Amino acid sequence: MRHMTASPRVRMSPDSRREQLLDLGVRLLATRSIDEISIELLAEEAGISRGLLYHYFGNKQDFHRAVVRRAADELIEVTAPSSDTDPLVQLMLSLGAYVEYVTDNFEGYVSLVRAAASGDEGMREIYEEARAALTDRLFEVAGREQLAALGVTDSAATRLMVRGWSALTEEVVISWVRSPAGVSRDDLLQRLAHGLVALVRDPA
Amino acid sequence: MRHMTASPRVRMSPDSRREQLLDLGVRLLATRSIDEISIELLAEEAGISRGLLYHYFGNKQDFHRAVVRRAADELIEVTAPSSDTDPLVQLMLSLGAYVEYVTDNFEGYVSLVRAAASGDEGMREIYEEARAALTDRLFEVAGREQLAALGVTDSAATRLMVRGWSALTEEVVISWVRSPAGVSRDDLLQRLAHGLVALVRDPA
Repeated sequence: MRHMTASPRVRMSPDSRREQLLDLGVRLLATRSIDEISIELLAEEAGISRGLLYHYFGNKQDFHRAVVRRAADELIEVTAPSSDTDPLVQLMLSLGAYVEYVTDNFEGYVSLVRAAASGDEGMREIYEEARAALTDRLFEVAGREQLAALGVTDSAATRLMVRGWSALTEEVVISWVRSPAGVSRDDLLQRLAHGLVALVRDPA
Repeated sequence: MRHMTASPRVRMSPDSRREQLLDLGVRLLATRSIDEISIELLAEEAGISRGLLYHYFGNKQDFHRAVVRRAADELIEVTAPSSDTDPLVQLMLSLGAYVEYVTDNFEGYVSLVRAAASGDEGMREIYEEARAALTDRLFEVAGREQLAALGVTDSAATRLMVRGWSALTEEVVISWVRSPAGVSRDDLLQRLAHGLVALVRDPA
């Protein structure tokens, strides 16, 4: 059984301790579905009492939402655009990071997508916020001039297609990680990136 | 309270009666989520006893699956390609029928997508079968020669992108029906149809 590097006996602020426990929750989520992450499992892995965990997280639902929010923040962070000025290169790099994230956290990621799609309003909210952050960023990064150069107007129709592309990317990457069927990672990234450009371009 | 046109007292074969009850279930689903369709509601609307319904459908889960399977078959039927020989025109007509179906059956359709995404394996299976039927048809209809003329090869990568486009279309159409935000139906159909062509084209 692995324990956290910092012993729980070391005095830490409640906030730092909570953050550390959330990080552990996110790591556990990589290879498990959200339903398999219990307060009991976290207590065992962290080597602290269940009572203390309930003190930090209230109940199981609040604990799950906190872990998922942390996982979503992590995804937004690892896929943050680089400083490269070519928007297509930035997009390819972000997509590469996204594919790596889904590969490394497959069980947890698929369970989050399912939890968001199901009846849990709290999960759906976190998921929608993360998706909005990931897609709105595309417009901010590119900027109006670069969009115009690509033949793209920032309109309701364009935003709708970007939202659709985001669903496409999620579906395609999950399917590909599950079964690559001979499609190379580079081919996948090329198709997704060029697909976005084609989808948001104004009709001729 | 509406009742079925044919009185339940008229002698019908068990299969016809079951079909008739399923049709009623699908009609009820248009304006309700799947969880709101109970054996009790169907019994009331059909004017027959709950006992008889349990006789036809076994239990609630089997009843729900039968209704959803029927709804999926209906969707596949109404979006069937026309006899038009231009694949792009066929695609636009199918997409138009899909948009109309989602508009007319909004509550039920959204609840099905959610049920499929959640833990219910039976629902997911029906959903995956319907999606596969809807997308595989695109290749059959177009045929190898027409695909080649469009610059498309039938490959694992192409099938992956079509699967993604299907998720995109679902997301975009549900969002659009919920809030059109000034995007016209024609603009929507144009973007979805041309989007597919762009997504499946082999990279230059």
